[in-house]
Amino acid sequence: MLARKLLAEFIGTALLLATVVGSGIMGVMLSPGNTGVALLANAAATAAALYVLIVLFGPISGAHFNPAVTLALWLRGELRGREALAYVLVQVAAAIVGVLLTHAMFELPLLQPGTHVRTGAAQWLSEGVAAFGLLLTILLGMRHRPAAVPALVASYIFAAYWFTASTSFANPAVTLARSLTCTFAGIRPVDVSGFVLAQVAGALAAVPVAAKLDNPTDG
Amino acid sequence: MLARKLLAEFIGTALLLATVVGSGIMGVMLSPGNTGVALLANAAATAAALYVLIVLFGPISGAHFNPAVTLALWLRGELRGREALAYVLVQVAAAIVGVLLTHAMFELPLLQPGTHVRTGAAQWLSEGVAAFGLLLTILLGMRHRPAAVPALVASYIFAAYWFTASTSFANPAVTLARSLTCTFAGIRPVDVSGFVLAQVAGALAAVPVAAKLDNPTDG
Amino acid sequence: MLARKLLAEFIGTALLLATVVGSGIMGVMLSPGNTGVALLANAAATAAALYVLIVLFGPISGAHFNPAVTLALWLRGELRGREALAYVLVQVAAAIVGVLLTHAMFELPLLQPGTHVRTGAAQWLSEGVAAFGLLLTILLGMRHRPAAVPALVASYIFAAYWFTASTSFANPAVTLARSLTCTFAGIRPVDVSGFVLAQVAGALAAVPVAAKLDNPTDG
Amino acid sequence: MLARKLLAEFIGTALLLATVVGSGIMGVMLSPGNTGVALLANAAATAAALYVLIVLFGPISGAHFNPAVTLALWLRGELRGREALAYVLVQVAAAIVGVLLTHAMFELPLLQPGTHVRTGAAQWLSEGVAAFGLLLTILLGMRHRPAAVPALVASYIFAAYWFTASTSFANPAVTLARSLTCTFAGIRPVDVSGFVLAQVAGALAAVPVAAKLDNPTDG
Repeated sequence: MLARKLLAEFIGTALLLATVVGSGIMGVMLSPGNTGVALLANAAATAAALYVLIVLFGPISGAHFNPAVTLALWLRGELRGREALAYVLVQVAAAIVGVLLTHAMFELPLLQPGTHVRTGAAQWLSEGVAAFGLLLTILLGMRHRPAAVPALVASYIFAAYWFTASTSFANPAVTLARSLTCTFAGIRPVDVSGFVLAQVAGALAAVPVAAKLDNPTDG
Repeated sequence: MLARKLLAEFIGTALLLATVVGSGIMGVMLSPGNTGVALLANAAATAAALYVLIVLFGPISGAHFNPAVTLALWLRGELRGREALAYVLVQVAAAIVGVLLTHAMFELPLLQPGTHVRTGAAQWLSEGVAAFGLLLTILLGMRHRPAAVPALVASYIFAAYWFTASTSFANPAVTLARSLTCTFAGIRPVDVSGFVLAQVAGALAAVPVAAKLDNPTDG
Repeated sequence: MLARKLLAEFIGTALLLATVVGSGIMGVMLSPGNTGVALLANAAATAAALYVLIVLFGPISGAHFNPAVTLALWLRGELRGREALAYVLVQVAAAIVGVLLTHAMFELPLLQPGTHVRTGAAQWLSEGVAAFGLLLTILLGMRHRPAAVPALVASYIFAAYWFTASTSFANPAVTLARSLTCTFAGIRPVDVSGFVLAQVAGALAAVPVAAKLDNPTDG
Repeated sequence: MLARKLLAEFIGTALLLATVVGSGIMGVMLSPGNTGVALLANAAATAAALYVLIVLFGPISGAHFNPAVTLALWLRGELRGREALAYVLVQVAAAIVGVLLTHAMFELPLLQPGTHVRTGAAQWLSEGVAAFGLLLTILLGMRHRPAAVPALVASYIFAAYWFTASTSFANPAVTLARSLTCTFAGIRPVDVSGFVLAQVAGALAAVPVAAKLDNPTDG
């Protein structure tokens, strides 16, 4: 049972990374002087992939694809610790495989450290807000309209790519894997830890807020 | 109960403003010579955020995020006066917080008055039409397909960003808060009152038209 | 009852034209050297408006907004002749009002004949294909998934704006009204009749094809 | 019964090709210096058309429009061999008709061999991944949310246009027909066989993976 769940997390996370990194490469290649078009394509392709992958794998593994999501759901008791740990390890491995696969599709060097500088308080605030909103979307969405969670997460991430200054990584496994590409979606390896801390903080902050908004006896 | 509703209005309105202002900043930053791409991103991100926020907060507070909506629903007796007043105050406060948060994410001065001139009869006509259409969308949508209201409002606002000459503010709290930014989405403080009057007039005009179209005994 | 239906056709058609013409003006204004961005905005705004207007007015009038649709449904016996005639007259009047309203919103001369040349066999073939596909979408959509008709028509028109050489007017009332603007969406008055004939031919051709595909005893 | 199914496959595949090729021509015509805008329009128009065509023709023929899909479903026993062969022949013929129709609409020479070089291991890997993902989307989508298959396929193809280096043809009939146009969507005739082999390999690889993920006794 766990093996099937982990296979779902693996395929889903790898294809998610292929979409994030691949659409960024394609966008910059086709519209070099107009990065707005590249981010539009990047955001729309990522949203479309998220919608598909969450519909396909949600009934199997929950379609986390994201250690911050796994962590928050473990805290709410919806996942056992051992299972959560396996999820996170598979997500990280799959994210890296997704980046390598993309480099192969675009005939780029497989191994290339990211060079895009993404650091400082404003970037961390952006990632915190992005992860807070993502978790709120998942937790309230699961309660108010579970069938719409794939469309909700897709729409949220599309918006967050544009309204945060960091283009909303909002996912520690994605962040780590994106430090392995020096294309449009990349990030310097040294900047990963700041992003991950901000993401975890934002995600954890959403848990009590969602509980407060959820509580009918309180309301 | 009211506290929970006000919390929902607060978070929803703040995130809505972050999306409106943040995606405008990002769009102009990435496509400086091609404002069409910026408005496309701005409109699509705002629509995506509206869809998410109305699904998440609709079951809690009704997801108004807009004093013109609160006013129209109060006139129809769907809200008590005291509650309506609290909604409006929270919406205005949250809209301002959303703008400040966005400035912080993009490392811009927190306080900056808008400089974008938006005034004159054509602009006011645009805002009147925009708010009329928004209220018609909400009132008829709630009657004919309530589950689709989040998608309807999102789609309407996407279209209205493009078909009105004012890019459809259609929301007094949003208008006021946007006078506090001199980025893409801004408006001069002195132009706020004209926009708000036009929005309220358009919204109020929609109430009897929706009632006329709604009335099965009349039809 | 008819008055309520005609009011629905009127408001829907006028807002549809405002979207078609207004988003074209805005697109060219913001991206003058990049008409692809203008057509992207034009197509997306039109699709979004169609989705909203068909959900809102479908349960009242059927949300035709289009004499070719009214004609085809009258041929199938879903509308009486007198009613069909009233629909068409209201659609034409509303389309013109929508264009004038848009000119007012954008501070343009209210009366301005179109100057965009759109004629010749290839353009007529485009309009025939566009109207054929639109009617097939409506007739098969109403049979196979009636609740999705608003999304189907919206999606179809988005695609048809791009895959036909004429950008898919596919609507005689829209064509006539667009001969009254010399902005992006305009057409020369002298070219209207060719477009309308092609649209009617395409729409009528779809009726027997849809019947053939529909027929379960045949299938 | 088969005749009605083949008519559905014919119209659907022809309109799909018209969208793929026509929106590419229009995109390059309007945004010659900004191919990113052309691919954005191309991907969005294709996705919109796929959504419509699968809703309309799914209940009649299954809406394959793709020999790789027909092959995979035949392998799973959901189609008889004779029927599958007829499907493939009709798909190829319809795809060619769709390309010729598009050339006629845009006043281009009807017959024109493709000149776009698309070959090499990275392109084949892209097509393999694209077809693998498409079949996974269809097979798991049919199991977990059959009513969403039109939206899933549309969203998947939108993403795959951007995340693969080949812009995801993922369809042997489409590939063959696109060798008959030297516009944006074209491919050299000599490159067709490599693409088709990669697509078939990717599609076949998805069948056991989907079965593994599907299996509840295993899970």
